[in-house]
Amino acid sequence: MLEVVIIGSGNVAQHLIQAFNKSNTVKVVQAFSRKRELLFPFLDSSLVINQYNQLITADLYIIAVSDTSIKEVAQKLNIQNKLVVHTSGSSDLSVITPHNRRGVFYPLQTFSLSRNVNFTEIPICIEAENNNDYQLLEQVGFTISDNVKRIDSQQRKSLHVAAVFVCNFVNHMYVVGQEICNENNVDFKLLQPLIQETASKILELSPSEAQTGPAKRNDTTTIASHLRFLTKKNQSLLYKTVTQSIIDYGKKL
Amino acid sequence: MLEVVIIGSGNVAQHLIQAFNKSNTVKVVQAFSRKRELLFPFLDSSLVINQYNQLITADLYIIAVSDTSIKEVAQKLNIQNKLVVHTSGSSDLSVITPHNRRGVFYPLQTFSLSRNVNFTEIPICIEAENNNDYQLLEQVGFTISDNVKRIDSQQRKSLHVAAVFVCNFVNHMYVVGQEICNENNVDFKLLQPLIQETASKILELSPSEAQTGPAKRNDTTTIASHLRFLTKKNQSLLYKTVTQSIIDYGKKL
Repeated sequence: MLEVVIIGSGNVAQHLIQAFNKSNTVKVVQAFSRKRELLFPFLDSSLVINQYNQLITADLYIIAVSDTSIKEVAQKLNIQNKLVVHTSGSSDLSVITPHNRRGVFYPLQTFSLSRNVNFTEIPICIEAENNNDYQLLEQVGFTISDNVKRIDSQQRKSLHVAAVFVCNFVNHMYVVGQEICNENNVDFKLLQPLIQETASKILELSPSEAQTGPAKRNDTTTIASHLRFLTKKNQSLLYKTVTQSIIDYGKKL
Repeated sequence: MLEVVIIGSGNVAQHLIQAFNKSNTVKVVQAFSRKRELLFPFLDSSLVINQYNQLITADLYIIAVSDTSIKEVAQKLNIQNKLVVHTSGSSDLSVITPHNRRGVFYPLQTFSLSRNVNFTEIPICIEAENNNDYQLLEQVGFTISDNVKRIDSQQRKSLHVAAVFVCNFVNHMYVVGQEICNENNVDFKLLQPLIQETASKILELSPSEAQTGPAKRNDTTTIASHLRFLTKKNQSLLYKTVTQSIIDYGKKL
């Protein structure tokens, strides 16, 4: 049985603990959280500590805290030559102090506390400093996911930036779409089939093949009519910027 | 049996004909296309005309052509006091000549020729000038969809603009995401689970609740690091504009 310690109690930490709880080969033997009670729904309270000097020996320490806290947390771990990884898409491996063996265990997904996720489909991007550690991370990764990939820091960073576009920015388009519906007393739910189809299409077609709409057609009449319709400055600015970008991409093809 | 004539042979026309072909209460009795052969896969060739003077009498004429051609096509129809509708989200009802009864039959979905769609889930937004015509359009709509809504021109226009955000602009974010992956030798497929989850989330959470990412957290360190990473001007401009918009929305909440 591989023994894992989780540091953190946020979205990623909670989802990882729940995923490992279903595994027969990986066991969460301890977790650290300043607010211990946040983890009581997932772990026996005797396993949840809030003092670094209570840390026990394990095969792997997963730091699942906000990007800005990883470095500080890693420094506080009073362990030596252990495998310590973080779960961040954008942080370098070197934010972890070098007196431990360092790695990354980055689940490429958007997590919300209120929503269950199916870990088996989530790509786990791993990085390590030596082959033994790679193999251990692969083993741990495959107990919760079918998709574990070796990804170096530069690639991981590009994935994280791309993820901002295809997840965070996409969601912002939903926010603006809903705002426009609300302003015109239209039920946002009418757009749900379109939203789902837009995402499903990408499983079959490349994004370029799937592109439709007035900007793709360079339909200046409709674009002008939409810009007259949008009265809010932020909506118009987004509309203009993304439309121009679609038109520019079209010229490159 | 309600008899329908379809004018046009593009995406929407082809998908509508295929959907009506499955109905027991609505029959496509004729279709018009300058390129008749485009419709032969879906209709007996004897039913496909390319001369307006061959038009027969029917209960409903559906003009499914590009927005810019609706007016011209409507003028060419040598029929009087018939129910004539277009399928456009952004065109006014008045683009149809007033010597016929006018309406709109707008299926709110993104259509690709190469992809089958399940019409039963597609909202059909209808508009008419009198109650009888509303009822006829509702009847026709419900033969192919479970979701038929009376939507006035202003509401329909807002839906069309919102659809540009949640479909066309969303797809453009996929285009840029793929470009970033390609530039860094990363398989775009790694982002698929994230893309699908981002859309699925919206079925349960409101877009504002679902928003995550560095802009939402106002994480200026990560934002600055992403902007250093992006070397292409169009990518940076999009990143800055959408990030600023997310930050501004956060302040309003």
